[in-house]
Amino acid sequence: MEPFAIWGNFIYTEGPEKLCLRPNSVAVCKENGLCDGVFDRLPDRYKGIKLKDYREFITIPGYCDMHLHAGQYRNQGRGMDMQLIQWLERLTYPEESMFRDLDYAKEVYGELTADLSEGFTTRAAIFSTAHTKATLLLMDELERTGLKTLVGRVNMDSNAPDSIREQDAAYSLAETRDWLNQVRDKGFLRTQPIVTPRFVPSCSPALLKGLGELAGETGLPVQSHLDENRDEIEWVRQLHPNSPSYAAVYDENGLLGPRTLMAHCIYMTDEECALMKERGAYVVHCPTSNTNVRSGIAPMRKYLDMGLHTCLGSDISGGHTLDMAEVIRQAIGVSRALWQLDEGHPAYLTAQEAFYMATEGGGSFFGKAGSFQPGYEFDAVVVDDTGYCQRKDAMETRFEQLIYRGRDSMVVDKYVAGECAIDRTI
Amino acid sequence: MEPFAIWGNFIYTEGPEKLCLRPNSVAVCKENGLCDGVFDRLPDRYKGIKLKDYREFITIPGYCDMHLHAGQYRNQGRGMDMQLIQWLERLTYPEESMFRDLDYAKEVYGELTADLSEGFTTRAAIFSTAHTKATLLLMDELERTGLKTLVGRVNMDSNAPDSIREQDAAYSLAETRDWLNQVRDKGFLRTQPIVTPRFVPSCSPALLKGLGELAGETGLPVQSHLDENRDEIEWVRQLHPNSPSYAAVYDENGLLGPRTLMAHCIYMTDEECALMKERGAYVVHCPTSNTNVRSGIAPMRKYLDMGLHTCLGSDISGGHTLDMAEVIRQAIGVSRALWQLDEGHPAYLTAQEAFYMATEGGGSFFGKAGSFQPGYEFDAVVVDDTGYCQRKDAMETRFEQLIYRGRDSMVVDKYVAGECAIDRTI
Repeated sequence: MEPFAIWGNFIYTEGPEKLCLRPNSVAVCKENGLCDGVFDRLPDRYKGIKLKDYREFITIPGYCDMHLHAGQYRNQGRGMDMQLIQWLERLTYPEESMFRDLDYAKEVYGELTADLSEGFTTRAAIFSTAHTKATLLLMDELERTGLKTLVGRVNMDSNAPDSIREQDAAYSLAETRDWLNQVRDKGFLRTQPIVTPRFVPSCSPALLKGLGELAGETGLPVQSHLDENRDEIEWVRQLHPNSPSYAAVYDENGLLGPRTLMAHCIYMTDEECALMKERGAYVVHCPTSNTNVRSGIAPMRKYLDMGLHTCLGSDISGGHTLDMAEVIRQAIGVSRALWQLDEGHPAYLTAQEAFYMATEGGGSFFGKAGSFQPGYEFDAVVVDDTGYCQRKDAMETRFEQLIYRGRDSMVVDKYVAGECAIDRTI
Repeated sequence: MEPFAIWGNFIYTEGPEKLCLRPNSVAVCKENGLCDGVFDRLPDRYKGIKLKDYREFITIPGYCDMHLHAGQYRNQGRGMDMQLIQWLERLTYPEESMFRDLDYAKEVYGELTADLSEGFTTRAAIFSTAHTKATLLLMDELERTGLKTLVGRVNMDSNAPDSIREQDAAYSLAETRDWLNQVRDKGFLRTQPIVTPRFVPSCSPALLKGLGELAGETGLPVQSHLDENRDEIEWVRQLHPNSPSYAAVYDENGLLGPRTLMAHCIYMTDEECALMKERGAYVVHCPTSNTNVRSGIAPMRKYLDMGLHTCLGSDISGGHTLDMAEVIRQAIGVSRALWQLDEGHPAYLTAQEAFYMATEGGGSFFGKAGSFQPGYEFDAVVVDDTGYCQRKDAMETRFEQLIYRGRDSMVVDKYVAGECAIDRTI
């Protein structure tokens, strides 16, 4: 890759507490796809490299959507009067069972990847369904987008209808190993597998154990769900009466570590918080989903204060939109509701903290990503905010308006790890 | 006007409890701009009238935005880390003071009216600023959009900086009468004046009294703010220690009646609720604003149950968007938060109820509007939902997805009181 630079107005974080606003500056992408930092002007050592002029716009590292179900894409905005378990049974499992049909998978995954390409999202962690072929097809489609993604073939051998349930742990594990072999043969550059037990109730003890062993053996990351809904938590307690908590069930099986994403985490006990922190696992906050299927409000401000790893997810199709700008606004909104209505929450998420979670917070799961600090993978999303901003506006204002008025349709250009990931000519 | 009919898929309410879903039906607009109802097919008596084919799309009565500040349009998405009084002083009053400059007013009001024209909104109740000329200019611009609007020149002679405060009650009242005379001379068809005391703290007792007399004498409607923020309520109590409540201050001055819009109403006491109900006044719920400036959550489900008149407002620029689809989603979301976190709220707003508030709830303030019932003014917004809906989808699904996936940019055509209000050729 040739090194290049972007001349523009940069907004990014250095950790949750530091927002960097750099108007009229230059960010350099080195030949290895890593950022060399943001400079007042192009350093002499880079004289002559390609310089892209985005001075009219703002440039951010792009948003990381750390939890979404590709197999539920067609269900966005449906079943929003149900709660989790009813919603799974009536709406979600029937839809996911359709992905045994590869033509259907191709149609839906084509729509999803096209939409992901267009918007703010640079990186994502994605659940497919319990179908190996459809999962491989999704990975093929994603690889072409230029986005960096983690994709999981879903494991589920228990407590689900036959149409979607795998017959037993042995079958599920064998299929997963077969899928991983095929993935390896594909040699993807940007699309990597992630071990994906659906959630505790849909995995037998043998399957949880086998998946933990697989993760340990391969070093692959893990994604699942935790403490989303009170009925679900009670169900887990009944299924695993000897485990001290829902989180402990994952932990006992070797599924909770620094490369684990746990979606929701609304009702974590102090012990579960301590365990998540000790293991270095990630909380993926999905506020649109949590509102839609009435799961509750995760105390993200508290988790940030505790030093837990935090990030955001659209959770399609509990969530109704892929647009991470709307997810960010909802994260701020529900945090304010919690602050307003519950004395136990004396602080709420600021716009800066929600932005951090959407960028560096999620990006860190991929290594160094989601910021323009030196040594980070060069992700950049160029946003046309000229529809409402005036030339004289301070960067503070442009940042605030990005949060409150941002929409996927404002994205002009996108780079992921230094590669152009949007092609307006298609 | 020539009568015409729309062939399409209709979604509308008959009161808060009845959602009408009429696929492949025909709605007739009579020569007087009133709806004759929705029929399975064009009635014989209308044979030969113009029939517009919108069978691909869905058609709704359009949304009524019953509270927004035109003079704050440029401030959308700014100052969202402040609460009401600080936000007024630091951000809002300085911006509104700019509207003494007619060139600035023309620029901003041009942007606002263009954006209002494009989206879901068919009707609106709008605060201008305390400037007569700029208010007339806004009314000229709005008249051209085809929307039906109520526009108020803001009265405020107290507790505000000199840059925006009127010198005294006599001046404010004289200016208002002069404005009303000029409005009468303009002979607007769609744009009508509304008496607009900003809120109790910014009006002297003499001004409140004079505005109540003016409303009584002219029969004009009234709009203001009520019970938005706890500090504001305490301020009103100190200013009017002998009045039993904030609502009572309006009532004592003849400003609370069946043609009164009160924005916010978050913290109404039982007595205030009873008074609002007795007077037949309207609660305008502004959930995006209430979240943004951290005012609180209005118990709208309770107000609906009590039989209060309820409707929705974008409240630009406490609210960050004119898009009423996002306001509807937020109304549902905050109601769920209240249900989740406060045992005093055993029920939450359904999608249907929020849709009712945005259509018929607000429309009823204009007489019969906001529904396709016979005798209602023929308002219709044609929405292209083909981007996500499949042909086989039931109307229930299309309704739910309209609520959760709706965006202003999906509007294809718009009629207000039978007149075409959108012109894609501009």
